[in-house]
Amino acid sequence: MRILIVGGKGTIGQAVVEKLKDAHELIIAGRTSGDVQVDLTSVDSIEAMFKKVGHVDAIVNASGAAKFQLVEEMTPEDNLVAVQSKLLGQINLALIGQKYLRHDGSITLTTGIMKDDPIPGGASAAMANGGVAAFVKSAAIDFTHGIRINCVSPNVLVESYDNYQDSFKGFVPVPAERVAMAYVKSVEGKQTGQEYQVY
Amino acid sequence: MRILIVGGKGTIGQAVVEKLKDAHELIIAGRTSGDVQVDLTSVDSIEAMFKKVGHVDAIVNASGAAKFQLVEEMTPEDNLVAVQSKLLGQINLALIGQKYLRHDGSITLTTGIMKDDPIPGGASAAMANGGVAAFVKSAAIDFTHGIRINCVSPNVLVESYDNYQDSFKGFVPVPAERVAMAYVKSVEGKQTGQEYQVY
Ligand SMILES: NC(=O)c1ccc[n+]([C@@H]2O[C@H](COP(=O)([O-])OP(=O)(O)OC[C@H]3O[C@@H](n4cnc5c(N)ncnc54)[C@H](OP(=O)(O)O)[C@@H]3O)[C@@H](O)[C@H]2O)c1
Ligand SMILES: NC(=O)c1ccc[n+]([C@@H]2O[C@H](COP(=O)([O-])OP(=O)(O)OC[C@H]3O[C@@H](n4cnc5c(N)ncnc54)[C@H](OP(=O)(O)O)[C@@H]3O)[C@@H](O)[C@H]2O)c1
Repeated sequence: MRILIVGGKGTIGQAVVEKLKDAHELIIAGRTSGDVQVDLTSVDSIEAMFKKVGHVDAIVNASGAAKFQLVEEMTPEDNLVAVQSKLLGQINLALIGQKYLRHDGSITLTTGIMKDDPIPGGASAAMANGGVAAFVKSAAIDFTHGIRINCVSPNVLVESYDNYQDSFKGFVPVPAERVAMAYVKSVEGKQTGQEYQVY
Repeated sequence: MRILIVGGKGTIGQAVVEKLKDAHELIIAGRTSGDVQVDLTSVDSIEAMFKKVGHVDAIVNASGAAKFQLVEEMTPEDNLVAVQSKLLGQINLALIGQKYLRHDGSITLTTGIMKDDPIPGGASAAMANGGVAAFVKSAAIDFTHGIRINCVSPNVLVESYDNYQDSFKGFVPVPAERVAMAYVKSVEGKQTGQEYQVY
């Protein structure tokens, strides 16, 4: 398959690339890294990327930002970081990308454990995760031509735990290699409308 | 209690007002209806409403729009209707409204069954519902001073079923009066971080 992996140079993305690279042709995208540049917070940038990349069999996203802020200090503006990136960045990748998917192609997005197992200051990220998961479940029943859509919801990663451990007390981190298997299941399997929780 | 009910003249809102009106002082808000006007899609309008209304013990929202569109025909712009209204309208009501809540006050938002039980063309509304539910669950752990936050997720209503039945084949509609009980539980009970599913 020809697979576009946005965020393929990131912590999760690299592990996904490792699993898929031998059997598939991969195109890695990032804001600054990879084979092609894209900023998912911009609809024009997503359109421009697909014009360059052309048709693919699978679209994977392993990127997305959010501002961490306690709700009592959060402003509507703070919340827009997650709205533009984690939420609309991913949904717009799916909405625009569907036109560049071959029959039986797939879309795989990324959510995260915080929506199910909240941490202080995580409400904006949780909102984006919850929005993406619900979109995926619902969008799956609309697609025709065999197009599938899933998301992966990772726990905090072993590889990221040093930076995040103060916020994730009592969480049991999972290895990136284990999380990557869920992306493989989404891309190479036949299921749709799923959220693969790797907790 | 002094309770602000945004959308209090709507189908759900009227049923909530019926349950609460004898024991509480209600302030009803709507775009054109009610005691005070507000457009939840505008941060300035929400700020202006709270400046007029002042402090309250509970904030309830029973409003929110979304565009129904099959994902294969949905543009990023179509999706913004739900983002601005159902999603950010409600979250901004919570973020701004928290400053006008008395100690032990509560916020009650509205989601809907479509995120759990998808219907064709419902992905944008589902996204907003999923985002609000996850925000509520996460925000609940950030609040201090006894502030609580919940949401109610209604099935399609008996009162709305004539208009919606083509999209909700096989759904068993619930009476507005039953849905209103969940809002009462949120306002008068002590739970927080809950989504009350009235399915
Ligand atoms: N790490 C964890 O423990 C963990 C757990 C659960 C969920 N997640 C979620 O998984 C996703 C990836 O996490 P990660 O830790 O692998 O991130 P990461 O190591 O920071 O990598 C992010 C990757 O995404 C790219 N990127 C960033 N912003 C972008 C944008 N606006 N448009 C396009 N590409 C962009 C980056 O490329 P450039 O460097 O070139 O910009 C980079 O390749 C995030 O949404 C994160 O919240 C992570
Ligand atoms: N009815 C159902 O079967 C059902 C099922 C599940 C979920 N829901 C959700 O529950 C919510 C209420 O549904 P409903 O059927 O009761 O709606 P409705 O009968 O159409 O009433 C909506 C109310 O909200 C107000 N409103 C609309 N847009 C507003 C805005 N931008 N800012 C402030 N107020 C606004 C309206 O006031 P004005 O007329 O003055 O503008 C009206 O009072 C919606 O989010 C809906 O999706 C409904």
